[in-house]
Amino acid sequence: MLAIAPLNSRDKTPLFRQLHAQLKELIESGALARGTRLPATRELAGTIGLNRTTISAAYALLESDGLITGHVGRGSFVAGGPLTDVRGSEMRGSGERGSLDSASFSRSRPSELLFPLEEFRKTCSEVIASDDAASILQLGSPSGYPPLRRYLLEQARAEGVARDSDDILITSGCQQAFDLLQRTIGLGTPVLMEDPVYPGARSVFERAGARLIGVPVGGDGMDLEILERTIARERPLLLCVTPNFQNPTGSSMPLGARKSLLRMTQAAGVIVIENDIYGALAYEGEPIPAIKHLDQSGETILLRSFSKVAFPGLRVGWVIAPRPLIERLAETKQWSDLHTDQLSQAVLLRFAESGRLEQHRRRMLVAGRERLEAALEACGTHLPAGTKFTRPRGGMSLWVELPPALDAAELLPRAEREGVTYLPGRFFAVSRPQPNGLRLSFAGMTPEEIRSGLAVLGRIFREELERVRAHVRLGEAAALV
Amino acid sequence: MLAIAPLNSRDKTPLFRQLHAQLKELIESGALARGTRLPATRELAGTIGLNRTTISAAYALLESDGLITGHVGRGSFVAGGPLTDVRGSEMRGSGERGSLDSASFSRSRPSELLFPLEEFRKTCSEVIASDDAASILQLGSPSGYPPLRRYLLEQARAEGVARDSDDILITSGCQQAFDLLQRTIGLGTPVLMEDPVYPGARSVFERAGARLIGVPVGGDGMDLEILERTIARERPLLLCVTPNFQNPTGSSMPLGARKSLLRMTQAAGVIVIENDIYGALAYEGEPIPAIKHLDQSGETILLRSFSKVAFPGLRVGWVIAPRPLIERLAETKQWSDLHTDQLSQAVLLRFAESGRLEQHRRRMLVAGRERLEAALEACGTHLPAGTKFTRPRGGMSLWVELPPALDAAELLPRAEREGVTYLPGRFFAVSRPQPNGLRLSFAGMTPEEIRSGLAVLGRIFREELERVRAHVRLGEAAALV
Repeated sequence: MLAIAPLNSRDKTPLFRQLHAQLKELIESGALARGTRLPATRELAGTIGLNRTTISAAYALLESDGLITGHVGRGSFVAGGPLTDVRGSEMRGSGERGSLDSASFSRSRPSELLFPLEEFRKTCSEVIASDDAASILQLGSPSGYPPLRRYLLEQARAEGVARDSDDILITSGCQQAFDLLQRTIGLGTPVLMEDPVYPGARSVFERAGARLIGVPVGGDGMDLEILERTIARERPLLLCVTPNFQNPTGSSMPLGARKSLLRMTQAAGVIVIENDIYGALAYEGEPIPAIKHLDQSGETILLRSFSKVAFPGLRVGWVIAPRPLIERLAETKQWSDLHTDQLSQAVLLRFAESGRLEQHRRRMLVAGRERLEAALEACGTHLPAGTKFTRPRGGMSLWVELPPALDAAELLPRAEREGVTYLPGRFFAVSRPQPNGLRLSFAGMTPEEIRSGLAVLGRIFREELERVRAHVRLGEAAALV
Repeated sequence: MLAIAPLNSRDKTPLFRQLHAQLKELIESGALARGTRLPATRELAGTIGLNRTTISAAYALLESDGLITGHVGRGSFVAGGPLTDVRGSEMRGSGERGSLDSASFSRSRPSELLFPLEEFRKTCSEVIASDDAASILQLGSPSGYPPLRRYLLEQARAEGVARDSDDILITSGCQQAFDLLQRTIGLGTPVLMEDPVYPGARSVFERAGARLIGVPVGGDGMDLEILERTIARERPLLLCVTPNFQNPTGSSMPLGARKSLLRMTQAAGVIVIENDIYGALAYEGEPIPAIKHLDQSGETILLRSFSKVAFPGLRVGWVIAPRPLIERLAETKQWSDLHTDQLSQAVLLRFAESGRLEQHRRRMLVAGRERLEAALEACGTHLPAGTKFTRPRGGMSLWVELPPALDAAELLPRAEREGVTYLPGRFFAVSRPQPNGLRLSFAGMTPEEIRSGLAVLGRIFREELERVRAHVRLGEAAALV
């Protein structure tokens, strides 16, 4: 029996987030031990008097946190949190999580199975054996570890995404880059974002009280006609855009669209924040130049990170932008947390400089291509007629629009009961709810898991569609009587 | 010739900070190469038309950043920033910085010479060879790496500073703990702080628009009479206090004072944020229980960190507070940067669990005691009559109040010319400027550096005092004519 405190429906935090916070706490405090089976959504819904959709949404977030894992036909189990034995607490099996999972489409992150642990170990050993070890352990600079800054800036200059007038700031991942930007230049201004969008970017601006305006994203990125009208109407200062393999849709903007976007924003004095966290993971086709590369004015702000292409647990991202802005961001950074962890900065620098990052990236591309193909093929095979889905050429996720009669959030509990999870569209909406939308993140799974997971989802969605249609027919028949 | 852009005297950023930002940029971009001699303050003041005090204040901040270093009789030299040779960029000699320094009293941080590099290397190797390596590299929890959370919480429970109703959040150092607290509970409320205070804490609340109210700190911490009156008058929600070895004064609150503070704040419903970043560095006397320990209500928020006792470059601190607050902080943390770097969390956990942290702490205590004694003795020997200074029993800094005729900021350029730096009182003021105050941070220096540095400072201060007194006598004599 779970000890869930009453939720507050008047709180501005949605019920599923309140429930998620409580369950997370129970898992992380050890009150719910690793391996414990969570109650079925129907059962918990009955016990605490909530809608099953709310329970499922909370479970999906836990799954996305890596705290629970689904198992076909058996339900959800606690995967994270402390072990009962203290001494064994850092011995949590890395492979174990992979083998427990059946089909989690809910995490946009690399698979642990692909981590090059041996190369990582070598890299750490080299860094801590170097003469620079003491200075890495000493207090550092708000702008970042100078050798890493210089390395990344040289790379960016060689690629044409940093001008002489640009500088670089190392952040604790892209999430912090968004936060520092909001705190430095995002005050009291409407912000244009893709709709659907990565919820972490949305939250940063939303909680600061900014007015968010969503611009619909299709297979080729932002809808440019709507973008143009929205800019004219709203006069925003900022536009956040992910031109490569956008999260959650996986779609990319073609070259022409990037140029059009730049023309529109420059004419209106809108600053572009280009989130390029997935750009290095292009599985097919030629890479398309970054907006930052195309931008003659140099004003575009480029965000990148080691998280998706290497290790999400090492929080190192960076911002490339005009020097005066970087100086202001560095000041905000200093207030926020002094500087980014230097051990990880030094390790990732060594990982990159030694060529190991590029080797790893090539292996990630092979694995990603295989997973993407499996996902696209399985979507085509299993999803019901009338379903649309994006066809990404890289990244970690694709976007599904079920036939309009289906609600992805309502169907999630059924999928979870069969050990398959995904994130329904509501997690990603700015101002355009898409109840029939859902994100499938394929990068963290094996092709086999992808195929079997989509077979399950396809069956559930088809069955529901038949049920709905039968209802409609029944209704029509009734109306004829 | 330095390329300094014109400063803006109308900007709300003070001139010395504007200059500091420009110089920092020149150093970090490599425009000012390592080893370059900076112009003397007098020379630069003449060139760019600023007061020498402004130049010195900027130099002091650079010194405090570790970017420049003083050398007796030779001036200030660029110590940080990139090397000219890219391939050698991570080979920056760790010992080099130490040997270049002559007497930098401006950095409240441990000496690199005391870092137990061999133990650190062993620790890293163990962590990355463990079965848990893959999960450390994977995306983590906003609340922190669960095994570290559990370890620290168990320690805190054993010490009596965490109740069953408390929980823990891992932060990217104490600086982020302040920031998360401000963002979560510090909105639009007057905040009481020690005066003088650690500028990083002050900035967080100041930039958020909070009204800061300084409570004077003496040798026994906050002045309790003034505190009581201020609470009654201002009705603040928050009080930040550092009961152990406060930065910058080094003073500690006796047990009775802690109890009184708690009585006052509880009666008025003021939440106490107890910054205990220096508490583990007690060189003399018995440790005094934390306010969090004395607080029967459990409301006190305790901040701690590995930065001062281990490695400042690894950004890992923590907050212990009632569970509902920790949940809210974790939500803010997720928006801010998803979670704290997991490699450093795992390495520091191993460092602590293996007993190496405690061994290192004992060595830090021996070294700290020796440095503190050297500093107190040299203050007594060299500083002019009429000087007051605190007598800390731990930590990294002490506070000097020169005879009122002297201005520590004005005298800094002269000290820097002779290769000695310190931070003048103005860096630490909340609402009570103490032009004759200055902070001497002794922990990062050798006893010999402390003695020779204080001999230089003593001579400069005595000479200035004689000059001022001669002026006064001259004035008196003139008045008699």
